[in-house]
Amino acid sequence: MNEETLRALLQKYTRGEITLDQVVGILKNGFSEELGFAKVDHHRELRQGFPEVIFSEGKSPAQVAEIARHIVKHGSILLATRATKAHFLAVRRAVPKAHFHPDSRVITAQENLVQKQGEGLVLVVCAGTSDIGVAEEACVTAEMFGNSVERLYDVGVAGIHRLLSNTDMLAKAAVIIVVAGMEGALASVVAGLVSVPVVAVPTSIGYGASFGGIAALLAMLNSCVAGVTVVNIDNGFGAAVAASKINRLHRKASA
Amino acid sequence: MNEETLRALLQKYTRGEITLDQVVGILKNGFSEELGFAKVDHHRELRQGFPEVIFSEGKSPAQVAEIARHIVKHGSILLATRATKAHFLAVRRAVPKAHFHPDSRVITAQENLVQKQGEGLVLVVCAGTSDIGVAEEACVTAEMFGNSVERLYDVGVAGIHRLLSNTDMLAKAAVIIVVAGMEGALASVVAGLVSVPVVAVPTSIGYGASFGGIAALLAMLNSCVAGVTVVNIDNGFGAAVAASKINRLHRKASA
Amino acid sequence: MNEETLRALLQKYTRGEITLDQVVGILKNGFSEELGFAKVDHHRELRQGFPEVIFSEGKSPAQVAEIARHIVKHGSILLATRATKAHFLAVRRAVPKAHFHPDSRVITAQENLVQKQGEGLVLVVCAGTSDIGVAEEACVTAEMFGNSVERLYDVGVAGIHRLLSNTDMLAKAAVIIVVAGMEGALASVVAGLVSVPVVAVPTSIGYGASFGGIAALLAMLNSCVAGVTVVNIDNGFGAAVAASKINRLHRKASA
Amino acid sequence: MNEETLRALLQKYTRGEITLDQVVGILKNGFSEELGFAKVDHHRELRQGFPEVIFSEGKSPAQVAEIARHIVKHGSILLATRATKAHFLAVRRAVPKAHFHPDSRVITAQENLVQKQGEGLVLVVCAGTSDIGVAEEACVTAEMFGNSVERLYDVGVAGIHRLLSNTDMLAKAAVIIVVAGMEGALASVVAGLVSVPVVAVPTSIGYGASFGGIAALLAMLNSCVAGVTVVNIDNGFGAAVAASKINRLHRKASA
Amino acid sequence: MNEETLRALLQKYTRGEITLDQVVGILKNGFSEELGFAKVDHHRELRQGFPEVIFSEGKSPAQVAEIARHIVKHGSILLATRATKAHFLAVRRAVPKAHFHPDSRVITAQENLVQKQGEGLVLVVCAGTSDIGVAEEACVTAEMFGNSVERLYDVGVAGIHRLLSNTDMLAKAAVIIVVAGMEGALASVVAGLVSVPVVAVPTSIGYGASFGGIAALLAMLNSCVAGVTVVNIDNGFGAAVAASKINRLHRKASA
Amino acid sequence: MNEETLRALLQKYTRGEITLDQVVGILKNGFSEELGFAKVDHHRELRQGFPEVIFSEGKSPAQVAEIARHIVKHGSILLATRATKAHFLAVRRAVPKAHFHPDSRVITAQENLVQKQGEGLVLVVCAGTSDIGVAEEACVTAEMFGNSVERLYDVGVAGIHRLLSNTDMLAKAAVIIVVAGMEGALASVVAGLVSVPVVAVPTSIGYGASFGGIAALLAMLNSCVAGVTVVNIDNGFGAAVAASKINRLHRKASA
Amino acid sequence: MNEETLRALLQKYTRGEITLDQVVGILKNGFSEELGFAKVDHHRELRQGFPEVIFSEGKSPAQVAEIARHIVKHGSILLATRATKAHFLAVRRAVPKAHFHPDSRVITAQENLVQKQGEGLVLVVCAGTSDIGVAEEACVTAEMFGNSVERLYDVGVAGIHRLLSNTDMLAKAAVIIVVAGMEGALASVVAGLVSVPVVAVPTSIGYGASFGGIAALLAMLNSCVAGVTVVNIDNGFGAAVAASKINRLHRKASA
Amino acid sequence: MNEETLRALLQKYTRGEITLDQVVGILKNGFSEELGFAKVDHHRELRQGFPEVIFSEGKSPAQVAEIARHIVKHGSILLATRATKAHFLAVRRAVPKAHFHPDSRVITAQENLVQKQGEGLVLVVCAGTSDIGVAEEACVTAEMFGNSVERLYDVGVAGIHRLLSNTDMLAKAAVIIVVAGMEGALASVVAGLVSVPVVAVPTSIGYGASFGGIAALLAMLNSCVAGVTVVNIDNGFGAAVAASKINRLHRKASA
Repeated sequence: MNEETLRALLQKYTRGEITLDQVVGILKNGFSEELGFAKVDHHRELRQGFPEVIFSEGKSPAQVAEIARHIVKHGSILLATRATKAHFLAVRRAVPKAHFHPDSRVITAQENLVQKQGEGLVLVVCAGTSDIGVAEEACVTAEMFGNSVERLYDVGVAGIHRLLSNTDMLAKAAVIIVVAGMEGALASVVAGLVSVPVVAVPTSIGYGASFGGIAALLAMLNSCVAGVTVVNIDNGFGAAVAASKINRLHRKASA
Repeated sequence: MNEETLRALLQKYTRGEITLDQVVGILKNGFSEELGFAKVDHHRELRQGFPEVIFSEGKSPAQVAEIARHIVKHGSILLATRATKAHFLAVRRAVPKAHFHPDSRVITAQENLVQKQGEGLVLVVCAGTSDIGVAEEACVTAEMFGNSVERLYDVGVAGIHRLLSNTDMLAKAAVIIVVAGMEGALASVVAGLVSVPVVAVPTSIGYGASFGGIAALLAMLNSCVAGVTVVNIDNGFGAAVAASKINRLHRKASA
Repeated sequence: MNEETLRALLQKYTRGEITLDQVVGILKNGFSEELGFAKVDHHRELRQGFPEVIFSEGKSPAQVAEIARHIVKHGSILLATRATKAHFLAVRRAVPKAHFHPDSRVITAQENLVQKQGEGLVLVVCAGTSDIGVAEEACVTAEMFGNSVERLYDVGVAGIHRLLSNTDMLAKAAVIIVVAGMEGALASVVAGLVSVPVVAVPTSIGYGASFGGIAALLAMLNSCVAGVTVVNIDNGFGAAVAASKINRLHRKASA
Repeated sequence: MNEETLRALLQKYTRGEITLDQVVGILKNGFSEELGFAKVDHHRELRQGFPEVIFSEGKSPAQVAEIARHIVKHGSILLATRATKAHFLAVRRAVPKAHFHPDSRVITAQENLVQKQGEGLVLVVCAGTSDIGVAEEACVTAEMFGNSVERLYDVGVAGIHRLLSNTDMLAKAAVIIVVAGMEGALASVVAGLVSVPVVAVPTSIGYGASFGGIAALLAMLNSCVAGVTVVNIDNGFGAAVAASKINRLHRKASA
Repeated sequence: MNEETLRALLQKYTRGEITLDQVVGILKNGFSEELGFAKVDHHRELRQGFPEVIFSEGKSPAQVAEIARHIVKHGSILLATRATKAHFLAVRRAVPKAHFHPDSRVITAQENLVQKQGEGLVLVVCAGTSDIGVAEEACVTAEMFGNSVERLYDVGVAGIHRLLSNTDMLAKAAVIIVVAGMEGALASVVAGLVSVPVVAVPTSIGYGASFGGIAALLAMLNSCVAGVTVVNIDNGFGAAVAASKINRLHRKASA
Repeated sequence: MNEETLRALLQKYTRGEITLDQVVGILKNGFSEELGFAKVDHHRELRQGFPEVIFSEGKSPAQVAEIARHIVKHGSILLATRATKAHFLAVRRAVPKAHFHPDSRVITAQENLVQKQGEGLVLVVCAGTSDIGVAEEACVTAEMFGNSVERLYDVGVAGIHRLLSNTDMLAKAAVIIVVAGMEGALASVVAGLVSVPVVAVPTSIGYGASFGGIAALLAMLNSCVAGVTVVNIDNGFGAAVAASKINRLHRKASA
Repeated sequence: MNEETLRALLQKYTRGEITLDQVVGILKNGFSEELGFAKVDHHRELRQGFPEVIFSEGKSPAQVAEIARHIVKHGSILLATRATKAHFLAVRRAVPKAHFHPDSRVITAQENLVQKQGEGLVLVVCAGTSDIGVAEEACVTAEMFGNSVERLYDVGVAGIHRLLSNTDMLAKAAVIIVVAGMEGALASVVAGLVSVPVVAVPTSIGYGASFGGIAALLAMLNSCVAGVTVVNIDNGFGAAVAASKINRLHRKASA
Repeated sequence: MNEETLRALLQKYTRGEITLDQVVGILKNGFSEELGFAKVDHHRELRQGFPEVIFSEGKSPAQVAEIARHIVKHGSILLATRATKAHFLAVRRAVPKAHFHPDSRVITAQENLVQKQGEGLVLVVCAGTSDIGVAEEACVTAEMFGNSVERLYDVGVAGIHRLLSNTDMLAKAAVIIVVAGMEGALASVVAGLVSVPVVAVPTSIGYGASFGGIAALLAMLNSCVAGVTVVNIDNGFGAAVAASKINRLHRKASA
C-alpha cells in the first residue's frame, strides 16, 4: 500500500462510501501481515517510500514463495534479492509471472506497477567482470524502484583510458553507483571526475589480503575525494536504495 | 573560479574584449597555483562544484595561512577544517575577516560569497554531546556550501523519546546527516523513520571495544535499514559534501 | 542430583536407614560418571543450580545419545543444544520420550521434572526472522530451567513502531534477552525503555562487514545505555542461563 | 525525579492542591533541562530507575560542575565517573559537599539520599592490584545506587588458593562482579564456584598481546561456564548498573 | 640416521673397513633424499635430535605413503600427523605394520625403535572433551619421541574441583602440556599450581568470539603466571616436541 | 621463604624448639603480607620455586619501594622489572644496596642470596641493537634466578654470517632465548640449528605493519621448526622464568 | 597486438598500402573486443608490455574458453591462471594446442610466440613442498613472459644448510622470487645473502595463527633486509610480472 | 668497503705490496666494528651492494653520532634516516660536513663518494602534500645510492588530470616509486599507465578507518594491475633500496 492508495481509501471513507470498520479492517491487514515466520511490513512503502523487499539468503524456497505471494496479492511490486534458482522455482509456482535475473540473482514481478520516481539517470559503473553480479543487483533494484538506469562496466583503473573515454556517460548521470573489489580505486577516480553524488559499493572480489572485501571497503571510506559515501560489502541493493532516495529529490523539487 | 566566472570570461573573449593570450594567462593561473609545498586546485570548483577546502591537520599555521591567502585572493570562499587556535591566528593575519568556529574547529571567510545550492533542508542529527564537534563540522561545511541547515542534537537512543518527539524536524529535511559514536544505533533508528537519504558519520567517541569508532562504523555499514550510506570515522566534512551534492539536485531539477 | 535429593539422602543416613557405604556409593556415582570420552558432571546441579547440558556440536550422534541416556537415568532433565536431526534420531533410540525443537536445534526430555525457579517473566525479543533460531535456543533453555517465557519477535529498529507498540510486554518482564544481528541496535533501544536487566545476544546474521557477528557484538558492548550485558555471538543458551540465574533471585527473596 | 516524587505530585493534583498548569510546569522542567551543551535527562530516573550519571571524560571541569549543580539542585544524588582532580575542584565549587574517590576517579554527593534498592550483597572481585581502579568504580557506583557492597581484591588465578580460601564470601553474594585484565581467567573460575549471576569486566591492564583488554574481553565472552555476561573494557560503572538492576529484583519480589 | 649410526659409520671408515667413497655415498643418501615432490631430511635427526615427521595435511595419500616408505626404509621411526583414514590406508600398503590413532589422527610405525630420551614424566592436561584430539596428538608424539606420558583430561575450570583433586598428578610431572580452547584459562590455573615448565596449546574449539582459537591464544600469551610458553593453535605436535626437548635435559644432566 | 627455610622451621618444631603458635605466627606472616594496596605473596617461592617479582609499570615509586622493603626484610632476593629511574631512587631509599640496570630497566638487590638452580647455560640471542632492552631483562632475570647466562647480540638474519660464525655458542647452551622484533625470523633460524629448547620473545621493535610486535609474534607462533615456544611481546622476564624452569631440570635430574 | 605489429601497420599506411579506414578498423578491433561479459584488452600489450592474462577463478569454463579463443585468434600468447581441470577441458576444445600445468593450475598456448624479454635469470625459491603450487605459477608466468627461469625448492629455514649449499644459484640470478608460507622467514634470509632485487610472495600455507597467510605477509613487509618488496598472498603470477618488468631492464639497457 | 676497494687490496697482496697479516688486519676491521651498543657491518656494502644505513629512531643522538663517525672514518657515504634535529646536531659535531634534509628527516655526508649505479631514472610520485616526507626519504636515499631521481608530487587521483598531464615524466622513468596514503589508489593508476617496475609505498597519512596506513597498504597489495610490489607503511627508504637494486641492472647489462 503506497501513499496514493491510502489517500484514495481515506477519501472514500470521507465521502461515506465505506464504513469506519471497513477502513480499519483494510488498514490492519494492509499494513502488516503475520505469516508466523515473518511479519510482512506493508507499512514500509508508506513510511520509507519503497515496498518491502525479500532478502532470500537464509530463507527456504517455500518461505520466500509465501512472502512473495502475499506481496503480490497486496498489489505491490515484487523484488527478492540473493535468490537461488531453487528460490525462483518456488516463487514461480506462487507468482507465475515472476522473472529471474541470473546475473544479479534477483526475482522480480509486477514490473508494470513501477512508477517513475526520479527525473535523473542512475549510472552504475563497475571495475571488472567479476563485479557484475553486484552491479546488476544495483541496476535491477534501481529500475524496480522507478529510476532510469545505465551501465558502464569493466572500466577498472588498470586501463584508465576505458573510463576516460566514457566521461560523457559520467556527465549525464544524476547519481553514480561505483562497484569495485580488489583495491577499490575506481570509486575515487570516478568521484574526482564528476560533481554529482557517488555511492560506492565494495565487493568481495579478490583473494589473500583483500580479506573478503575489506581492502576495497577501507579504500572507499578513505577516498581522497570528499563526499563519496559507502555501503556494506556486496550490497548492490542498498546502494540502489540510496541512489533512488537521492534521485527522488528531483521529482519532489520539480513538483 | 566557478562556472559563472568562466562563462563570463569566455564570452568576453568571443566578443573580442580580451585576447586569446589573456584568456590563456588567466585560465592558467586561475586553475592551479604552485605554492611549492602545495598545488592550489582552483579547477576543482569547476569540476566538482565546490571550492578547494584546506585540511589543516599536519600543516603548519604558516602553510594554512598561505593557502588561505591565495584562495581568498582568487575570490573563493574560505573553508579550513581541523584547525587549531594557532592555525586561526596565523590565518587571521593573512585574512583579517576570517572567523573561527571552536566547536567544529573550522575557519571560514568570505561567507557573503556563498550561493544557495539546494532548495532542501540539510538536517544534522547527533547522538550525544561528545559528538557535537563532528556534527558542527558537518553543519558549518554544509552552510558554507550553500545549504539551509538545522541541528537536532543529543537525541541518542538511550532515551528514544527525545528523538520521537522531534519527528516533525525529521519530516521536513531533504537530506539527513546522522552523527553517532559508541554503538552508532541512531543512524538505523532515524533512517527507519524517514524516506529521504541518510548519510551516517561514525565518531571516535567511546572507549574500550569501541576501538576508536570501529564499532559505530560497522553498525552503520550493517544497518538493517536499506539505503543508509556511510563516510569515514569523524568525517563530518565529507558527510556535508555528500549532503550538498545530494541537495543540489533540487536546484537542477527545478531549473 | 539436586540439593533436595542430596538432603533427603543424608537425612536417611542420619536416621540410620542406609549405611555409610551406601551413601558413599550413591554419591560417588551420583556426582560424576566416567564415560570414557566424557565425565558427566552431576555435581554441577548442586554447585551451580542447573543440570549439565550437552553441547552437541563436535560430538557424534552416538556420543550425545550415550550422555543423554546417563543424564536421564540419573533423573535429571535433558537438554542438548546445537543438535542436528541425526543427533536427535540417535538420542530418541536411547531416550524414547525425547523431543526435537527444529527452530532452536535443541533436544529435550523429562520436561515434567522442571521446577519453577524464578517468579518473574523472561522476555525474549529478537530483531529479524533470521535471528529466531538463536532466540528459540534461549526460550527453550529458559523454559527447561524453570522460567516463564514470552516471545516478542521481528521488532527490529528498521520499523521502530513494531517495538513501541509492544511496550506493555516490555513492562511486565523481570529480565529481557535481546537477540539481534547486523548492527545490533535493538539492544540499546530496548534497554533505554526499561529498568530491568537486559542480556544482549549478538547473532552472526549479516554479511560483509558484519564479520560473522562482530558488528553486533561491538555495538552491544558499546551500548549507550548503562547496564546492558553481553554474551558470545549466537549464544542463546548462555543468555538464558544468565537470565535464569537473575530471575531465580525472586524466589530466594520471597522465601 | 523518581517514581515516588512523581506519584506524590500527581496525587496532590488529584486532590486539587495544585493546578494543572503547575503540574505541567514542574514536569516540564523536572524531566529535562537544556544547558546548551547538554540536555540533563531527569526523566531517566523514572524510566530506568537510576539517576543520570555524568561521564566526565571529554567534558571540561566547568561543564561537569554545571551539570552537577543542576542535578543536585533537583534533589538527585550526584555521581560523576572518570573524573580528574581538576573536575573535582570545579565540582566542589558548585557543590561544596562533593567527595572525590581517587582510586575510582569518581565524584559523589548527596549520599544521604541513597535508598536501599536490593536486599542482596553485591560482591566485587578483582584479579590484581592494577585492576583496583576499575573495581572501585564498580563499588562506588553500586553503593550510590543503593546496594550493599563487599570487596575481594588481588585474588588472581596465579595463586588460586587466595580465591579458594574466600569461598565463604562468594557464597553470601547475590550478584558478583569480576574485574580482571591480562588473560581474564578469574571470571570463569569464580563463575564455576557459584550459582548466582556473574558480571565480568575486562580491564585494559596488560601489555603486548593483551591489546588493551581484548584478550580479557575475548576470554570472558568465551567462558566455559554458562551464564557469564560481559560489559565493555574498563566499564566498572556499567557492571555496577547491571548488578544493581539484578539485585533490585529482590526488593520487588519481597514486596 | 641418528648420531649413534653416524659415529659407528665414521669409526668403520677410520678402521679401514669401508672406503671414503662408500662413506660419501652413504652419507649423501643418508642425509637427504630427493623424491621429486619433497626432500626427505634424514639429517634432521642428527641436527635436532628427532626424526623427520610427516605433516599430512595438503599432501595426497600417495605422497604421504611414499615419504613414509623412505623413512621406514632408512630405519627411522614413522610419525605422520593430521592424517586422514585415506592417508592411513595408503601408508599401510607401503608400511604394513603402520598403526592409525583415530583420536589424534596420527600414523605411527617402528614403535620398537623409540629410545627413552628424558627421565621425567610428560603430563598432558586438557580442558574439555572437544580438546582431546589435540591432546592426543601431543601424547602420541611425545611417546614416539621417547617420553613417559600421562593424561589428565576434562578438567576445565568450569568445575575446578576436578583439577584440584588431581594435584598429585601435577606434582609428579617434569613438564606439563596444557591443551584448552574457549577462554583457555586452564593454562594459567595449572601453571599457578606447579613449579615445572608449562607449554600451553590453544585449540580452535569454540564459536563466535573465540575466532578459531584466538581467544585462547591471547589468554595464554597474557597469562598472569610467569613462564607459561605458548605454541600455535591446535599444535599438539609442536608442544610435544618442545616438551621432549625440555625433558631430554634430564638424560643429559644425569649422564 | 623457600623450601629449605620451611623444612628447617618444621624440624625445629618437631624437636620442640618452638611452639605450635610460634610456627603458625611465622608461617602466617611468612606467606602473605597485606600492604593495603597489595598482598605480598611469599608463598610463591615455595609453590613455584621463584620469589615474587615486582612489575613496576603502573605502580608509584613509593609503592614499589614499600613492596621492595618487605621482600628484602623477609630475606628474599629483590627483582623489580619495568622500573624507571624514579622507581629506583625510591627503592634505594628503602633498600640502600639496590642496583639499577638501565638497559633492562630492572632493579635488583640481595644478589648474594641467589642460589644456582640449573647446571646448564642459558643463552640469550637477539636480532638487533633495538632488541637489547628486552634481551637484558631476560638476562638479568635469569641470573637472579640462579642460571649461568651468556649473550649473543645483534645477529639478525640480514647478515646471517654473524649467526653462523657463532654456532659454537649455540652448541653449548642448555636453553636458548631468542629475542627479535620486525619479522622475527631469527627464532626459526636459531631453532633450526640446535636441538635444545628455544623460547622466543617477539619485541615491539618495528613500525607500520609490524603492529607493535604482532608481525614478530605471528612469525614465531608459525615457526617451521617444531618445538619453538613463544611468550608475550616484549616479555623478556617471562622467557627467563620459562628458561629457568627448564634449566632447573638439570639439577633435579642429577640429584 | 604488440608494439612491433603496430609500427608495421602504421608504416604500411604511410606507404599508402592500406587506407585510413582500414587502419581504424584494424585498430578498433585490435585494441579491445566486447564479448558481452568482458572487454578483452588487446591494448594492454602495447601499454604495459605484456599480453592480457585470464584470471580463471570465478569465471565459468565456457567464459574462459571464449576469452582464450579470442586471445589466440589475435595472435597473442595464452596464459590463464587459477584454472581447474574443467577450465582446461573447455579451453582445449576452443584452443586444441593448449597445455595444462597441474601444479600451478595454469593453462598456456602459443608458447612459440614467446620472445625473450630480459637477459637475466629469474630464480624462484620456495620454502616447503606445500608452497610449490604458488612457486610454479610464478615460474610458468615468468617463462611465458620471456624470461629464463630456474627453481630452488624446499629450502626453508628449518634446515638452513639446504639454502646455504645453493648460494651459487642465488649468485647467478638477476631477480629472485621467494615464495614462503608459515613464518615467511626465507625472504629475509635470501635477501640478506644477495644484492639483486628480491620479490617476496607470502603463501596461505599454515594453520591457526598463520591466518591464511597474514603471518607470512607481515613478516615479509617487516623484513630487516632493506629493499624486499612484497605482493599479495599466493600471488605467484603478480611476482612473476614484477620480476619480468625488472628483468626487461637488461634488454633495454643493452639496446 | 665496497667491491673495488676489496679487489685493489687483494691485488696489492698478490703483488706482494702488503703482507698476509696486514690483509687480515684490514679485512677484520674493515668488515665489522664492535661499538659496544652496535656492530657496524661494513661487510654489507660488499654483500648487498649498498653501505650500512643508520635507522635513527630509538637511538640516542650520541649513538647515531658515534656510528656516523665510524662510517665516515671508513670512507663510506653517510645516510641516517628518521633523524631528528637533535640527532643532526650531535652528528654534525662528529661529522662537520654532514647535511640535514628536514622534509625527509635524513642526514647525509660524503655525497661526493656517491657512484652512479644505474643508468635509468628513478621517478618518485606522491599523492598529496602530506606524503612528501616519505617521498623525500625515498628521493634522498635513491640519490645517495647513485641514482638519477625526479619528483612528481601532489598528483593524487582526486584530480586525475594532474597525473595525466605528466605522462611524459612517467614515460621516461626506469623505475617508479609511488607514495600514497588514504586509499592509496594512485599506485594502481600509475602502474596501469606504464610498463616499468612500480614500487608502492603506503603512508600513514589519513584518519579513522585508514588505520595508520593499513587501508593504503591493502589497496596496494590488491592492485588490479599485475606486478605492483609493496613495502612497509612509510618505508620510503626501503622503496628506494628496492628501486636502486632494480635500476642497477642497467649498469650490469650495459657492461
